Amino acid sequence: MATPVTVYGPPLSTAVSRVLVCLLEKDVPFQLVPISMAKGEHKKPDYLKIQPFGQVPAFQDDEITLFESRAICRYIAEKNPSKGTMGLFGTNPLVKASIDQWLEAESQSFNPPSSILAFQLVFAPRMKLKQDEALIKQNEAKLVKVLDVYENRLGESRYLAGDEFTLADLSHLPNTQYLVEKANRAELFTSRKNVGRWWDEISSRPSWKKVVEMQNAPPQ
Amino acid sequence: MATPVTVYGPPLSTAVSRVLVCLLEKDVPFQLVPISMAKGEHKKPDYLKIQPFGQVPAFQDDEITLFESRAICRYIAEKNPSKGTMGLFGTNPLVKASIDQWLEAESQSFNPPSSILAFQLVFAPRMKLKQDEALIKQNEAKLVKVLDVYENRLGESRYLAGDEFTLADLSHLPNTQYLVEKANRAELFTSRKNVGRWWDEISSRPSWKKVVEMQNAPPQ
Ligand SMILES: N[C@@H](CCC(=O)N[C@@H](CS)C(=O)NCC(=O)O)C(=O)O
Ligand SMILES: N[C@@H](CCC(=O)N[C@@H](CS)C(=O)NCC(=O)O)C(=O)O
Repeated sequence: MATPVTVYGPPLSTAVSRVLVCLLEKDVPFQLVPISMAKGEHKKPDYLKIQPFGQVPAFQDDEITLFESRAICRYIAEKNPSKGTMGLFGTNPLVKASIDQWLEAESQSFNPPSSILAFQLVFAPRMKLKQDEALIKQNEAKLVKVLDVYENRLGESRYLAGDEFTLADLSHLPNTQYLVEKANRAELFTSRKNVGRWWDEISSRPSWKKVVEMQNAPPQ
Repeated sequence: MATPVTVYGPPLSTAVSRVLVCLLEKDVPFQLVPISMAKGEHKKPDYLKIQPFGQVPAFQDDEITLFESRAICRYIAEKNPSKGTMGLFGTNPLVKASIDQWLEAESQSFNPPSSILAFQLVFAPRMKLKQDEALIKQNEAKLVKVLDVYENRLGESRYLAGDEFTLADLSHLPNTQYLVEKANRAELFTSRKNVGRWWDEISSRPSWKKVVEMQNAPPQ
């Protein structure tokens, strides 16, 4: 059996859970090294050697150490083309380009407002930080515009990059989960027919359900 | 001769110039369709069909239409492995993963503060908009932290992803050019020994000089 790969970081982190769901989709065995952010373990010199920006996740297999969740996902998918969900990063160059395009749309257009909203609406209250109402309003307006583009796109194709579930869809799971389930913002997604249908489909994948279970497990 | 590919958008746009320098590095002939942002051409229905977010650039060759500058660059490099600068997107999976990692660092960590600074310091005055001093300060502080990580990294290797100039370095050219040449922020780069050396090297590539020439050409 292959040695499991290592992921550093807590499953509650959106960037960590992006990597976990990718590993589960590709049937790649992994071990998790939790890294306590409350204790500042992500800013310790040893950790900074593998993630110089002091963020989670970091990733290691026998060949390489990597950071940046989307780069890690691309690497996992490229390294394991015939394992698990085969089409996750496409099986021909044109589909791959379309996946890359929508993965960039997630990273450039969807992630900035949705990660700010997840922080403000879910984590700030837990950390007893004051919420910034103006910031929330501004980013909700940005997200609405992005979701309008998605609504159109998902009227043309079942998933963002085409007929198959790919990294482009997968990358939306972590932030959307918080917005729908913990931030009382389900309506942003379900009020849009195609986006709602898409969210139902992608969030009910066994891989993602497993990650949510890991997120909800009591801390050890 | 192959039909040239088409890039939509003005060379002054950082995201457009990222694609242009990639095409020049890969010796891929192109034609430019300028798109006047002043006239709002990027928000017209016909253009939204190829770039649904209403941004520049968009890209077209005989096989595909794409948006998102970094996805376009990946596509160009993957499609033309043996043209122009051979190692631009790596020649083996591990180097490619490292390029992807630093390209993500650019997109996630370097681009947000540097594009805000370029807008505030270069474009806002040209558009007679009031500068937001607090925003400038906050993003300068963010950029300093990113450049400190780069300084370390560029002490270990000549370029971000290793010994060769790659997409990861290339992707930094557009914003850095504005900060160094038009925003009076050269010192952020040149005061750091390795970052300064790196900037000298990457900005003197003929491909980039040609893009700067296109940016400085009087509008037609
Ligand atoms: N672009 C990075 C973002 C990583 C990130 O922002 N991680 C957060 C947790 S979700 C973190 O480590 N925050 C702590 C910090 O930035 O100091 C990735 O996708 O891996
Ligand atoms: N993530 C996109 C960003 C594109 C972008 O922000 N383009 C700017 C010009 S540099 C633009 O079109 N702005 C107009 C707008 O957003 O309405 C890419 O890399 O292609």
